[in-house]
Amino acid sequence: MTQESSQVAPRYLTGDKAGLQEFLAKFDVFLFDCDGVLWSGDHLFPGTVETLELLRNNGKQVVFVTNNSTKSRADYRKKLEGLGIPSTVEEIFSSSYSSSIYISRILQLPENKRKVYVIGESGIEQELRSENVPFIGGTDPAYRRDVTPADYKKIAAGDESIIDPEVGVVLVGLDFHMNYLKIALAYHYIKRGAVFLATNIDSTLPNSGTLFPGAGSMSAPLIMMLNKEPVALGKPSQAMMDSIEGKFKFDRSRACMVGDRANTDIRFGLEGKLGGTLGVLTGVSSKEDFVSGDVRPHAYLDKLSDLLDLE
Amino acid sequence: MTQESSQVAPRYLTGDKAGLQEFLAKFDVFLFDCDGVLWSGDHLFPGTVETLELLRNNGKQVVFVTNNSTKSRADYRKKLEGLGIPSTVEEIFSSSYSSSIYISRILQLPENKRKVYVIGESGIEQELRSENVPFIGGTDPAYRRDVTPADYKKIAAGDESIIDPEVGVVLVGLDFHMNYLKIALAYHYIKRGAVFLATNIDSTLPNSGTLFPGAGSMSAPLIMMLNKEPVALGKPSQAMMDSIEGKFKFDRSRACMVGDRANTDIRFGLEGKLGGTLGVLTGVSSKEDFVSGDVRPHAYLDKLSDLLDLE
Repeated sequence: MTQESSQVAPRYLTGDKAGLQEFLAKFDVFLFDCDGVLWSGDHLFPGTVETLELLRNNGKQVVFVTNNSTKSRADYRKKLEGLGIPSTVEEIFSSSYSSSIYISRILQLPENKRKVYVIGESGIEQELRSENVPFIGGTDPAYRRDVTPADYKKIAAGDESIIDPEVGVVLVGLDFHMNYLKIALAYHYIKRGAVFLATNIDSTLPNSGTLFPGAGSMSAPLIMMLNKEPVALGKPSQAMMDSIEGKFKFDRSRACMVGDRANTDIRFGLEGKLGGTLGVLTGVSSKEDFVSGDVRPHAYLDKLSDLLDLE
Repeated sequence: MTQESSQVAPRYLTGDKAGLQEFLAKFDVFLFDCDGVLWSGDHLFPGTVETLELLRNNGKQVVFVTNNSTKSRADYRKKLEGLGIPSTVEEIFSSSYSSSIYISRILQLPENKRKVYVIGESGIEQELRSENVPFIGGTDPAYRRDVTPADYKKIAAGDESIIDPEVGVVLVGLDFHMNYLKIALAYHYIKRGAVFLATNIDSTLPNSGTLFPGAGSMSAPLIMMLNKEPVALGKPSQAMMDSIEGKFKFDRSRACMVGDRANTDIRFGLEGKLGGTLGVLTGVSSKEDFVSGDVRPHAYLDKLSDLLDLE
């Protein structure tokens, strides 16, 4: 799949003015992973704003691509704004949005099976609403409680007071309020035939310089119980690339994916057959990963703002 | 490991008086899986009490072996009593007990790393107390809450108000109150060097004629985040067989494991090199599983009470 790219050593562009000019001239669109590229946690990297400005001033389209499913695009725009990065909702692609698009426009659900049972936070709910997809679960306090003996019996019997017969999809994202009842319900909906989707399957979530449970950790019990993997809509799933392309109608050969993780961001760009992939060393992957790992970008930089050397 | 047994067709003993006599004469000790063998959920199978009585009257030692980690041995004895089955605490081996024995007698923990961080219910706590093992977590209400922004920072910093430096073991069992904070803490303790143990790794738990998340579902997010399997103490782990033998000092060649699941109960007996394994068809595995599956018992019965045909 990525044989060609993964066998060629990536070009190191930091300080290479001619190389940078040449690289940038190839692309009209830049897809950015955010955390680890533009900022880390709440810390904006110096030069991020100026670099994005430089690209825009040179007529490049900028798209922010995030696997963060807890935020809607509007929430994410606020986050960017809070960090001092100008953006529009239209420039943002989150896994919650990608999931909603997939459910509303790609899945062909029967008339009476259009409801989504959500494990996740309000970002998913907002994006489902924006696509007019009916849902239950999510942040509804009725699901934030202990399981009771009556629940077991009702779930087993498919009692409609707890099992909604119109649920045709289970969508699992990061849920800070995950509990036994939510997992039990998701399991039973899938056993009854619902499609098993995950916003993304990142097992961990960076925070405060370390790692916490990610969206993939919410799917993990279900994967083990069902012996079945979900369809994942975030990077590196090509379902996400397809929806980005569906929206921006860009020429893939003139697009470049920028990211810090070889096995998600760079793989996402390579499998999507984008014209370019650019790694940065301010996040998860190391120089060694980029230079001699299984998944190698076309080029890499010490940090994103090294692009400013163009000028 | 079980090549010999797994390639021979098991003997079908229902209605075969001579076969039953011959089979039973070989053993002094019978290890019983419970749910699916003696009862199902809250329904006691007819003839269970009489069959156990028959075995005891014939001088056989009876041991109840359960992966249920939510109950202590004392709780389990009450459950047996409630179903009309006479027993003593000494006859019961639960995965919570097996885990406590493993921690107190087998793990060699440094002096300042003897505390256990528990994900699980009171059964585990009772058994840890019975072995004088200090622990935190478990049913403590302080852990039954949402994660807060302050938690991330404190956990990342290893702040002793939330990360106990004496924790040297993480023990994960079935926890009906599992939540994001508990998983995050378990992850960080293991990353800091704690031993990763699971009472058992059954992905599901039978209830009300269907399945719900089991103890393995509590370990699943951690396995995914850490890319590491726990040491599991329940069936079919031989750590459980070793502690049963440690207590009863029986001759393995004169012991028989009775169970309804080929891949846990029967495997447990075969890998433990017991003299016999007896499958029953009142639970999970089917006749086909026993006759032509990968893991085959030495003999099988339609139901346990078919042993009464002896008389």
